[in-house]
Amino acid sequence: MTTEGRLLRRDVLYTGKVVDLVVDRIALPSGREGVREIARHPGGAVIVPLFDDGSVLLVEQLRYPVGKRLLELPAGKRAPGEEPASAARRELEEETGYQAGRIERLLAFYTTPGFCDEELHLFRALDLRVVPGGPRREEGERSMTLHRMPLDQACALIEEERIADAKTIIGLLLARSGARSG
Amino acid sequence: MTTEGRLLRRDVLYTGKVVDLVVDRIALPSGREGVREIARHPGGAVIVPLFDDGSVLLVEQLRYPVGKRLLELPAGKRAPGEEPASAARRELEEETGYQAGRIERLLAFYTTPGFCDEELHLFRALDLRVVPGGPRREEGERSMTLHRMPLDQACALIEEERIADAKTIIGLLLARSGARSG
Repeated sequence: MTTEGRLLRRDVLYTGKVVDLVVDRIALPSGREGVREIARHPGGAVIVPLFDDGSVLLVEQLRYPVGKRLLELPAGKRAPGEEPASAARRELEEETGYQAGRIERLLAFYTTPGFCDEELHLFRALDLRVVPGGPRREEGERSMTLHRMPLDQACALIEEERIADAKTIIGLLLARSGARSG
Repeated sequence: MTTEGRLLRRDVLYTGKVVDLVVDRIALPSGREGVREIARHPGGAVIVPLFDDGSVLLVEQLRYPVGKRLLELPAGKRAPGEEPASAARRELEEETGYQAGRIERLLAFYTTPGFCDEELHLFRALDLRVVPGGPRREEGERSMTLHRMPLDQACALIEEERIADAKTIIGLLLARSGARSG
């Protein structure tokens, strides 16, 4: 079963830059009417940029909704029709100024499936080299700064709650378990 | 710096059951005007229910926005003014019918800080015992089913992509690393 009931009415309340807001009214099996709110998001890619020396590259940026600068893995939305691996390569280059010689898919996950359809595809980026010209950031990313540190140190920041972004926690923990078993 | 610019105008476009949608117009340092979309969420609690035999309890439920049944840790929104630990105990009981003799905070994280302020507080629940009367689920949770399995097996489902919910991936990976080091 992949639906909860028959769709009675769909209202697209907002069409935005990052998210759309859709509100569905459905007929539940009980006969009552239910409301389901969906933040629609195009999905995106998250990259764990791993250097040969075992260090990882993080970006620090202001996140307007939470009013804080957060330390995160490079990531970004998919452009229409863009493959997740292409989005990963593009975002890595734009945000960090590094190009990946090799990119490996780890897995995909939903960030918050209770009210949003955003799916993120997670990649490990290896054989990193500097792109001539450096990062090409968007206007909202101008204050972004880069932090390179050993993977174990980044994982320690999770436990200290100095890394508090879900996709970043997942990427770092999986990269570490891969590094240990690989 | 915790703001990107001066707030020019805030529109609350929708006030919902789970999320509100707020759109801010801000004056950027460049002089241009920026738009910031925020899905406002009350935040919530996520629980890793760990039995003495090393097994963990997961709930399977239909997630309307992604059109799939997902295997997740018990979790739920905070009621107004409710402490995260209280929300964790309440949601565990309502969704699973188990009560925690002991509850330990692991950390808190943002599910998707680029466009949403949702913060989830993660707890480990121990000394589990059955509540007389069983679960007390809400209407949208009627089709929820319980799955109890060894923690290592649940972690294997992450790599097989049969567990694809971000908070669940984080909770299971952290519970496993805690079980190993503790």
